[in-house]
Amino acid sequence: MLIEGKNAVREALNSDLTVNKLMADKNLEHRKDDIINLAYQKRIKVEFLPKHILDKKSQSQHHQGYIAEAVDFQYCEVEDILKKAQDKNEIPFIVLLDGIEDPHNFGAIIRSCECAGVHGIIIPKNRACQVNDTVIRTSTGAISNMLIAKVTNLKDSIDYLKDNGVWVFVAETGGENIYDQNLNQPIAVVIGSEGNGVKQSIRSYCDGILTLPLKGSVNSLNASVACGVVIFEILRQRLK
Amino acid sequence: MLIEGKNAVREALNSDLTVNKLMADKNLEHRKDDIINLAYQKRIKVEFLPKHILDKKSQSQHHQGYIAEAVDFQYCEVEDILKKAQDKNEIPFIVLLDGIEDPHNFGAIIRSCECAGVHGIIIPKNRACQVNDTVIRTSTGAISNMLIAKVTNLKDSIDYLKDNGVWVFVAETGGENIYDQNLNQPIAVVIGSEGNGVKQSIRSYCDGILTLPLKGSVNSLNASVACGVVIFEILRQRLK
Repeated sequence: MLIEGKNAVREALNSDLTVNKLMADKNLEHRKDDIINLAYQKRIKVEFLPKHILDKKSQSQHHQGYIAEAVDFQYCEVEDILKKAQDKNEIPFIVLLDGIEDPHNFGAIIRSCECAGVHGIIIPKNRACQVNDTVIRTSTGAISNMLIAKVTNLKDSIDYLKDNGVWVFVAETGGENIYDQNLNQPIAVVIGSEGNGVKQSIRSYCDGILTLPLKGSVNSLNASVACGVVIFEILRQRLK
Repeated sequence: MLIEGKNAVREALNSDLTVNKLMADKNLEHRKDDIINLAYQKRIKVEFLPKHILDKKSQSQHHQGYIAEAVDFQYCEVEDILKKAQDKNEIPFIVLLDGIEDPHNFGAIIRSCECAGVHGIIIPKNRACQVNDTVIRTSTGAISNMLIAKVTNLKDSIDYLKDNGVWVFVAETGGENIYDQNLNQPIAVVIGSEGNGVKQSIRSYCDGILTLPLKGSVNSLNASVACGVVIFEILRQRLK
């Protein structure tokens, strides 16, 4: 996996990701800025290459003179997420994404989840954004502290969670006012995709619908904002 | 102002924006889909043009066969925002953006503000994203229900708000736990820019700092998510 651009590479070097090597613009060879020094410090091999070679290797065309080659993101199992909660002696707090497609939304959601103390995220293997370098960059380092499970069938994971005493709620319009619910219990929240929300087949499988009261005429929030508001309401109730 | 792409043009036609004309791909002339019909219904002039002409007119290169020419967004005055609250007989609820640069963030913030019942948004004239077609598209129609004031100096607006009995708080780390504060009073919240947060000169000018408790090691949220969580906490307290 390639990670490109000044900030993304710096964050990758500072995270738990395994970076195999850093490729940097030849013009930086004698300047040795903070990123190059950080790579040396972490004993990561640095290759100085002419700009046109970096341009060729780049996938994003926004490398800014820095491309890091990292080991692909390691997904976990759903069990690992429940185990993390248990190890921390905390009530399980999980987010399921039913088909988020925009890597910026996925990255922002990972960042919010890390900030709110979510134990892990579950995503479907198909028709959904996977962890890629845009996701990693947008998560601003949060990815290295977040367990993410990639599953063939979200329903099987919901079953598994229910069997383990976790309540599975959909965050969507048309349900119970979220502020009237007791969220201080083992909870997983399903966030729908940008265009279509949560699939009917998934919705009918869950324990209920949590709804934010909306005052305007636009009846939905951006997916990553909705996820943020819902998980912080759960955190608020748990901190009380 | 040009609005481009299927969804953005449909939303523009359905909103309160004044669309002068719709330019559509010549191949659509005999198909007359929902967007073309909507334009006819609203008595908007439709011009059918060859694709290469649309390509030339397009600013985004993602016109998908539809470009609408709309009257530029009309900004309001700060007074209008307070007047809106008064007319609705509601406690003022205002958001100030100190230098948001990403149009997707700005659009998502407008959408969240509309959903949470914010009366208006104040942005600085310089070094900040202005209302453009990406902002309009990302706001998914919310822009047509939102008052936005563009001011030369945020500090003057803060002064004006304070003089009118509005408490001005910064949303940032390092302040009072937001969940311990009484937010059921006239409030304006300042949201900082993606890279640098709220400027020191603005922060020192405000009445206090509202801080979300964060549990992870990443110590900040995406700007539009942070704005969403904060304004929904204000809404939650007001609905109690």
